Amino acid sequence: MTALETMGKNAKLAARVLATAGAKKDKALLAMADALEAGEAEILAANQEDLNAARAAGMSDSLLDRLALNHARIQGMAQGVRAVAAQNDPVGTVVGGSVRPNGLKIEQVCVPLGVIGIIYEARPNVTADAAALCLKAGNAVILRGGKEAFRSNQAVAQAMRSALEQVGLPKDCVQLVQDTSRSSAVEMMQLTEYLDVLIPRGGKGLIQSVVQNSRVPVIETGAGNCHVFVDESADLEMAAEIIFNAKTSRPSVCNAIETILVHKKIAERALPVIKARLDEKHVELRGCERTCAILGDSVLPATEEDWATEYLDYVLAVKVVDSLEEAMEHIARYSSGHSEAIVTESYRNAQRFTQEVDSAAVYVNASTRFTDGGEFGLGAEIGISTQKLHARGPMGVNELTSTKFIVTGSGQIR
Amino acid sequence: MTALETMGKNAKLAARVLATAGAKKDKALLAMADALEAGEAEILAANQEDLNAARAAGMSDSLLDRLALNHARIQGMAQGVRAVAAQNDPVGTVVGGSVRPNGLKIEQVCVPLGVIGIIYEARPNVTADAAALCLKAGNAVILRGGKEAFRSNQAVAQAMRSALEQVGLPKDCVQLVQDTSRSSAVEMMQLTEYLDVLIPRGGKGLIQSVVQNSRVPVIETGAGNCHVFVDESADLEMAAEIIFNAKTSRPSVCNAIETILVHKKIAERALPVIKARLDEKHVELRGCERTCAILGDSVLPATEEDWATEYLDYVLAVKVVDSLEEAMEHIARYSSGHSEAIVTESYRNAQRFTQEVDSAAVYVNASTRFTDGGEFGLGAEIGISTQKLHARGPMGVNELTSTKFIVTGSGQIR
Repeated sequence: MTALETMGKNAKLAARVLATAGAKKDKALLAMADALEAGEAEILAANQEDLNAARAAGMSDSLLDRLALNHARIQGMAQGVRAVAAQNDPVGTVVGGSVRPNGLKIEQVCVPLGVIGIIYEARPNVTADAAALCLKAGNAVILRGGKEAFRSNQAVAQAMRSALEQVGLPKDCVQLVQDTSRSSAVEMMQLTEYLDVLIPRGGKGLIQSVVQNSRVPVIETGAGNCHVFVDESADLEMAAEIIFNAKTSRPSVCNAIETILVHKKIAERALPVIKARLDEKHVELRGCERTCAILGDSVLPATEEDWATEYLDYVLAVKVVDSLEEAMEHIARYSSGHSEAIVTESYRNAQRFTQEVDSAAVYVNASTRFTDGGEFGLGAEIGISTQKLHARGPMGVNELTSTKFIVTGSGQIR
Repeated sequence: MTALETMGKNAKLAARVLATAGAKKDKALLAMADALEAGEAEILAANQEDLNAARAAGMSDSLLDRLALNHARIQGMAQGVRAVAAQNDPVGTVVGGSVRPNGLKIEQVCVPLGVIGIIYEARPNVTADAAALCLKAGNAVILRGGKEAFRSNQAVAQAMRSALEQVGLPKDCVQLVQDTSRSSAVEMMQLTEYLDVLIPRGGKGLIQSVVQNSRVPVIETGAGNCHVFVDESADLEMAAEIIFNAKTSRPSVCNAIETILVHKKIAERALPVIKARLDEKHVELRGCERTCAILGDSVLPATEEDWATEYLDYVLAVKVVDSLEEAMEHIARYSSGHSEAIVTESYRNAQRFTQEVDSAAVYVNASTRFTDGGEFGLGAEIGISTQKLHARGPMGVNELTSTKFIVTGSGQIR
């Protein structure tokens, strides 16, 4: 048995205990939050070692910032874990049921998925977040973080495992993979006997590699080539505010927009207003021919590649379209299916856009930046699914469950 | 572009029309049922060619029977399609929603999955069943049946496609793969750009091959190593009836049982009663040591392999266990997670069994043979999922949908 197979086996045993642990899970989560706070010195010392090694290896400042922990971030982790404890427990919720003509009583109830694997990159707070959400839904979790954050992850996981033991739950409810080489990720993708689902969290390269290679069922998260369509009837001020917010409030996240589509009948009036607003944050525009004709030399010409690119930066592609249909065609062709918005005063066009655009979240007159578990009222999220199976859009604890049918009878045969 | 990529592209276009087709889908289904009946002569002629070729190739009688169509079976297909038309349309159902403090209105609504691939084996009625269910839920479908049934499938698909055209829907809502070689199945498993989900229907070999090799998300169906546990407090007559029904009413299906577990305190009384009932159908028993000691020479000794085998035949493995816990341990180890039953008069043991056994359907005092979409009141089923992601247990039209979030605002930014 390999180290990972042993972890898988232990996780399965732990998951069986967790499946019926009820309120003990919340006790464990609260103890975990306390343990993270109490273990701050150890966690920060481990994080300092990671930071030193990363700096010596030439890691960029922005990545060093993602890796770095401090008092406030550890407090944030602990508060996040407490917030998960405060959510409703989905396990046992009856989601459907009936009594059949033969007297059989059928109930469909929420149960944990079982064992969840998470493959993630540099941010050590994912260790606490992901473990807490998995645990709340009754799942054991096997965490495989990036090698840059290994010492930090180890210290965080250690605090959480000690809390599990303290409340009488198996510490293997939360396990951290010790081997951070590529081969451990590859092995996890083949661990169908032990893992019920694998969730990659990180950049596009990581996610695509897991989606392409995993034999374990995967929930694909994150990639967001999001659009705002400014319809001919749009309120111009509203359109400019929504675009400014959706592009610049946090350009590096998946619910930020990458392309705007502007109806030709409003383009001449709208584009200068939108550009003026975006200029405040020095957003680089890449436009189609008609956009360039309206806005002049300050706009770079867009290439085919621009329509398909998730910049995650202060860059925005701009296209003038002839109609709502052309806008929806463009979205159908280039979108990653994450979030799209229409700005319109037309009832009919709002209806058509929300019905026909096939993305996880479709907005009328609001910023795409709201696609988020917290903003949707789902509590903390494990990621935003851009696939259609199992879960789509922000995934909270409910999406970390499956169901089973409980059928009670009095001797019925068929 | 390969032939399959072209089909995928056409299916995607068709799926966009279907997504908002509403009641037109039911018109299409009713027209399909009529077309199947009207096309009986052509379908039977094509089927006869398949049968001749299969007989010449030495196909066994039982497989020939699965391949064969006749008047009654075509009537059955048409009635099945009409029954699907009569079901509720899941598309557009609002499954959740709220108004957020900032005034955003969030609705989570059911939408089609998109394009569904079905890989199946010899039975031509799957062509009609699967296409009808996919269509009802607003999905385009690409059907890849076995080569033995190709002419029959082609005739059935042709009838359905002409019905689609007749009601003004794209005929590519239903497409049949023309290449029935292994390579077309392999290519479908890689068709991530066009297929949203792949559902294998058939034997264990087919299903495992798809699960192991597909990059398209798969819903695993079918394998059933199901158990009945006879608890110490069981009503003996009820236990014998349930076991007799679950083993012998249709041994070749996935919800038939393969192993019974009998509490040691009841084994000496129960086993002879159970055996006497099973003897009526000449069921071969393979027992553990204690079973053999009680029942004598007429029982073959079971090997480790027997506990893991889905016989799909008049064979049953029998094990005497010390406790409820040992029974649940055995199930956790060997079950395929399909259906398990306890026969008991103990409230506490019934509770523990239903809570702790982790299978798609868990029964108290009823036959496992009820795990079926029709029996559960879900209407026709596309298969029985034995995985935990997306859908678990019998899958009807509702399980062929995803959701999206529709968010309507008045200029909200974050």
